[in-house]
Amino acid sequence: MREPYAVREAGLPDRVTVYEVGPRDGLQNEKAVVPVEVKAEFVTRLAAAGHRVIETTSFVHPKWVPQLADAAELLGLVEKVPGVRYPVLVPNERGLDRALEHGVEEIAVFASATETFARRNLNRTLASQFEMFEPVVARALENGLRVRAYVSMCFGDPWEGPTPVGQVVEVGRRLLDMGCFELSLGDTIGVGTPGHVTALIGAFGGPSRLAVHFHDTYGQALANTLAALRAGVTVVDASTGGIGGCPYADSATGNLATEDLVWMLHGLGVETGLDLASLVETSTWLAARLGRPSPSRVVQALGETPTGGTADHDVKE
Amino acid sequence: MREPYAVREAGLPDRVTVYEVGPRDGLQNEKAVVPVEVKAEFVTRLAAAGHRVIETTSFVHPKWVPQLADAAELLGLVEKVPGVRYPVLVPNERGLDRALEHGVEEIAVFASATETFARRNLNRTLASQFEMFEPVVARALENGLRVRAYVSMCFGDPWEGPTPVGQVVEVGRRLLDMGCFELSLGDTIGVGTPGHVTALIGAFGGPSRLAVHFHDTYGQALANTLAALRAGVTVVDASTGGIGGCPYADSATGNLATEDLVWMLHGLGVETGLDLASLVETSTWLAARLGRPSPSRVVQALGETPTGGTADHDVKE
Repeated sequence: MREPYAVREAGLPDRVTVYEVGPRDGLQNEKAVVPVEVKAEFVTRLAAAGHRVIETTSFVHPKWVPQLADAAELLGLVEKVPGVRYPVLVPNERGLDRALEHGVEEIAVFASATETFARRNLNRTLASQFEMFEPVVARALENGLRVRAYVSMCFGDPWEGPTPVGQVVEVGRRLLDMGCFELSLGDTIGVGTPGHVTALIGAFGGPSRLAVHFHDTYGQALANTLAALRAGVTVVDASTGGIGGCPYADSATGNLATEDLVWMLHGLGVETGLDLASLVETSTWLAARLGRPSPSRVVQALGETPTGGTADHDVKE
Repeated sequence: MREPYAVREAGLPDRVTVYEVGPRDGLQNEKAVVPVEVKAEFVTRLAAAGHRVIETTSFVHPKWVPQLADAAELLGLVEKVPGVRYPVLVPNERGLDRALEHGVEEIAVFASATETFARRNLNRTLASQFEMFEPVVARALENGLRVRAYVSMCFGDPWEGPTPVGQVVEVGRRLLDMGCFELSLGDTIGVGTPGHVTALIGAFGGPSRLAVHFHDTYGQALANTLAALRAGVTVVDASTGGIGGCPYADSATGNLATEDLVWMLHGLGVETGLDLASLVETSTWLAARLGRPSPSRVVQALGETPTGGTADHDVKE
C-alpha cells in the first residue's frame, strides 16, 4: 500500500500521540446500530494497529446516547492489551459509579466553553458546570483514576459567534486545577482556522497538558492540527475513518480522520507508532458494517476498491 | 450564512490570489456532459463572486478530453469582465493556433516533473518535453500573451516514488527561463505533506513566481496550502466545490475546493476579494447540474440543504 514520503519540517514534535475517539465519539454519532461484538473487535483492531489510547465508550445515560447503551457489556468483552489505555467518557457521578464498577482506569469529562452550550447540553450555566465535575473528578482521583477533560465549543458555537480565547482558558484552568491531567480543546462545530488555534494555545501560555480535537465540518481539521503541532501540541484526537459527527450527508464528516492525520504526521517524519495499512484496513472493515463509505480521504484513496485505489490511473491532462 | 472568524496569523501574506481552475481542471475530469451554456454561466458566476483569474477551458484535442471539445464555442459565449483574466490551457502549437484565433490573452502549458509521466502523458522524455513547449511559449510571447506553466507530479508520481526536489527545480527553471511568468507546482496525485512543500519552495530559493496546485486525494491539500503560505506563496489554485479529479468514488475529491480554501484564508484574515456565500451558491447550483454532491466540506455544511446546513444541530454529547 502507498505510504507518505517523510520530509521533516523544522519546529515540530518528534512524536505525537493520536488519541483515538472512534469507538466513542465516532460510533455515538452513527445512525447504524453496531453489535457489541463488532465494537469489541473494532477496539481490538485499533490496539493491534498500534494505538496506545482508545476512548472505548461512554457511561452517559442510554436515553441520550442509545448507541452506547452497551458500554458495560463492551468493557467486559474488550481484551485489554498491556500498555494501552482505554478511557471512558463519564458525564456525571452516576456514570463514574458505573466506571468504577467496571474497572475503568481513565475517564474523560465533557465541559463547555460557552454559556449557551453549557445550558443546552449540560443543563448548567457556564459557571455552575464545575459543580457537576468537581465531585466526579475528586472521587475519580481518590480512586486512582486519571481524568481527561474535554472543553467543547472552544472556537465558536452555533449561537454566540466566536468564543473568546480568555473564556476558554478560564474554563480550562478550572478543570486543570481540579486535577485533570489533560485538556482536549474541541472545535465541536469545526469553524476554527489555524491562526485561531495558534492564538488559543498561546493564551494558555503554551502547549503543556493540551490536546486538540478538531472537526472537519469546514475542511479545516488537518490545517488546524498543523498549527497546533507548530505550537508544540503532542496529543491529537482523531476518529478511525473520520466516523461520527454529521449524519446530515453521507459524505460529510465530523471528526478528523485518523488516517488523514497519520498520513500528514508520517509525511512530516513525526512518529506515531501506528501502522497506516492496518488503520485503513480497519476503516474499510468498519465502513462495511456501518453501511456507508468512510469520509477519510486516505481510506477512500487506498481502502475501498478491490485493487487498493484507482486514483493513480486518472492523471491524463 | 455562517462565515469564518478572522484571527490573523503572523508571517502570512496579507492577500492571496485564488487561481480558479474549476471550468478547466474541474470539468475535464467530470463524467457528466455539461452543456456549453451551463459552462458559460458557471464562468460568469465565478467572476461575479469576485474571481479575477478563471482558467476557462483547454485547447487540447477533443479525442483526449471530449468534455472540453466546446472550448471555442465557450470562449465566444463568455462575457468578459474587465480586470478578469480568462487563461486557457494549451498543450501544443495547434492548441496555440486556436487560442490565438479566439483572442485568448493568457495561456497555460502543462509540463511533467517526472520521466514516466512525461512519457505517458506527453509522449516525450523529461528532457525533450521542452522542445514541445519552446515554440508554444515563444510564439505566445511574440503575440503578447502571458504564459503560465504547470509542473505536474512535483511531489511524487504513481511509478517513481517521491520526486526529487532538485528535479522539480530544474524543470521549473527551464520554463521560467523560456519566459513563463508563473509556475504552478502541482501535487497531481495528492501525496505531498507540509514539510515537503516547505522543502520544495526552499529549493526554488523562495516563493517568487510560484503558485501551488494541491489535490486532496489524501486530505492534505489545505495543510499543504498553509505550509506554502508560510513560505510566502501568494497564488493558490483551487476548484469550485472541489470538482474534478477522482471519479472513482462519489464523495472523493481531486482538486482543493475553493470554498474550503477561502474559509481558511478569510479565517486567517487573508484577503481574497471573494464572496464566500456566492461561491457556495455557485457550487450548489453546479452540483445539481453535475448530478453529484460537491466534495467541498464548506459546501456540504452550508450549501446543500434547504435550511443552509444542519451541522449545528448535532452537537449533543
